[in-house]
Amino acid sequence: MKLTILGCYAATPRSFTNPTSQVLDIKNRLFLIDCGEGTQVQLRKNKLKFSKINHIFISHLHGDHFFGLIGLISTFALLGRITDLHVFGPKGIKEIIEMQLRLSNSWTNYKLLFHELESNESETIFEDEKVIVKTIPLKHRVYTNGFLFQEKTGDRLLDFKAVQNFEIDKCYYQNIKKGKDINLEDGRVIENAKLTFDPIAPMSYAFCSDTKYYESIIPIIKEVDVLYHESTFLDSEEALAGKTMHSTAKEAAKIALKANVKQLLLGHYSTRYATIDLFKEEAQTIFAAVLLTDDGKVFEF
Amino acid sequence: MKLTILGCYAATPRSFTNPTSQVLDIKNRLFLIDCGEGTQVQLRKNKLKFSKINHIFISHLHGDHFFGLIGLISTFALLGRITDLHVFGPKGIKEIIEMQLRLSNSWTNYKLLFHELESNESETIFEDEKVIVKTIPLKHRVYTNGFLFQEKTGDRLLDFKAVQNFEIDKCYYQNIKKGKDINLEDGRVIENAKLTFDPIAPMSYAFCSDTKYYESIIPIIKEVDVLYHESTFLDSEEALAGKTMHSTAKEAAKIALKANVKQLLLGHYSTRYATIDLFKEEAQTIFAAVLLTDDGKVFEF
Repeated sequence: MKLTILGCYAATPRSFTNPTSQVLDIKNRLFLIDCGEGTQVQLRKNKLKFSKINHIFISHLHGDHFFGLIGLISTFALLGRITDLHVFGPKGIKEIIEMQLRLSNSWTNYKLLFHELESNESETIFEDEKVIVKTIPLKHRVYTNGFLFQEKTGDRLLDFKAVQNFEIDKCYYQNIKKGKDINLEDGRVIENAKLTFDPIAPMSYAFCSDTKYYESIIPIIKEVDVLYHESTFLDSEEALAGKTMHSTAKEAAKIALKANVKQLLLGHYSTRYATIDLFKEEAQTIFAAVLLTDDGKVFEF
Repeated sequence: MKLTILGCYAATPRSFTNPTSQVLDIKNRLFLIDCGEGTQVQLRKNKLKFSKINHIFISHLHGDHFFGLIGLISTFALLGRITDLHVFGPKGIKEIIEMQLRLSNSWTNYKLLFHELESNESETIFEDEKVIVKTIPLKHRVYTNGFLFQEKTGDRLLDFKAVQNFEIDKCYYQNIKKGKDINLEDGRVIENAKLTFDPIAPMSYAFCSDTKYYESIIPIIKEVDVLYHESTFLDSEEALAGKTMHSTAKEAAKIALKANVKQLLLGHYSTRYATIDLFKEEAQTIFAAVLLTDDGKVFEF
C-alpha cells in the first residue's frame, strides 16, 4: 500500500503548499482522494500516471478539497481518455461538474460516472475482487465523508516444498490456495494447513478529513493499519477548532488511541504555523505512532 | 502601463507552464484578465497584491481561461476581503460561481458583482475617470470576448515656467490643466496653449484570446499601443487552427499589420512545441514588432 501526498494544507493554495489531495495505490488500484486546486499539476510533479486513475473520492464540497476536479476531468478529456471515470462525492457534485462542461461546451469523450453520497451511515461504495471502500461519515460544517479503503484477504500462500513433497499436480494449486483440502489418488486426504501458509494480512487505510473531534467514527476505523486524521490546529487554537468544526493534533491522537490504529498520519495543517513539527509533538503526548504528511511525501505500508 | 503574464499556454496546466492569466496595471488600476487554474498561486509568486484586484475580466468559459476563478474568489473571502469584486464574463459565469458557493456553504463576505456579457457588438463595460474598457467580440468555439483597455486622455501639463512668468495664482492651475484660457486681472487673456504642454499620450492595450483569424476585430483594435493576440499554432498546423478556431502566429501578425498596432505580443501557445521561438520567427515574416509572452514575464509600456 503506497500513499502519495499531493497536498495536505488547509484553506488556500500557496506557492509552496497545496490543498488536500492524495493518491492511494492499493492492490494496484490508484485511488485519488480529494482534489484541491492544482492537483493535476501535483500529479504530474509526482509522476503519477493520469490514465491509471479511474476512481476519485471527494470528501466534501469545500474548495480546498475539490476545486481541482473540473480541471482534472477536462484534462483527461483533452488527453484523449476513453476509460470510464468514477467520481464519488456529496450530492451536488454532478451538477457542479456538468454545468461547467455544458457551459464550456466541453463534454468528455469518456464516460463520467457520478456516485453521489448523502447517507449519514457508513456504506460500501466500491468493491471489486481485491479492495472494498466504505464511507466514514464525518462531522464538519457541510456534509462530509471520510473513506475507508480495505484490502480483501487474499488467497492462502502455497507451501511449495510441501506440495512438491506430496507430489501434488499443479492443477490442484488453485483449489489449495482457496483453502481446500486435497484428496490424493491413493485415497489420502491432505489437510490444507499442511500445504499452505496464512495469506498476507490485508491492509486498511482510513482517510478522515475534514472533521471535528467525532467519536462516532471509532467503530468504523477500529484497528486500521493507517489512519489519516485531519489536525488543522494545535491545542492553543482548540476553541477555533471547535468553532470551525476541525480537529487539533491532540484530538486526532485521541481518536487514533481509542480506535487502536497502528499508525496515525497528520495533515490539513492551518497555514498559520511556521513549522508543522509541533503537530507531531502535541499528538505524541497521547499516541506514539505519529507521522507527519507533507506535500510530495510518499508512504509505503 | 505594466503587464504581468501569469500564464500564457493553451490547454492544460503543467509543472512548468500555466494557462491564461494576465494582470494589467493601468493608471494604478489592477485588472485581472482571465483566470486559469493556479492563477492565485501565480499571483502570489509574482508578488501581486490580492487586495488591489477589484475587476476580473473573463474572455470565455473554456477551462484554461476560468477554472481558477472560483478558487480566487474563495481565497479572497478566506483572507477577509470586504471590497466589492467585479467579474465580467460570458453569461453563465454567475451561475457557475454561485452554485459552487452555495453547495459549499461559502458565501463571500464581500460583494461579488457579476457583469454578464452576451452582446456580439463591442460595448463599453467599464469606465471611470482614467480608464475605459470595451469588449472585442472574438470568434471561437464558444462565446468569447477580448478586452480593450484604454487610458483616457489626461489633463494638459502645466508649463511651470510660463505660469510663473505670467505670475498666475495657483488657484487657476486646475482650470489651466483642463485646457481653459486665463483672464488676468489687468484684462489680458492668456491662451491655454501658452501655459501648457500636450498631455501624455494615452496608452491602449488589446487582449484577444481565444479566436480564429477574424478581421472584424480590426476596427476595434486599430492603432492600439499593444496587442496581445493568441497564436496557439505555427503555420504547419494551420488546418488544425482552422478546425479548433484558433490562430497561427502568422495570422496574429496579419491582424497586427492590418490594425497598424505598435507592438504585438504573442501567447496561448500549444504545448506541443519544444520551443516558442518559432512563433516569433514566423510572425516576424509579416510584422516586425513582435514580443513573446512567457509565464512570469513583465512588460512595461
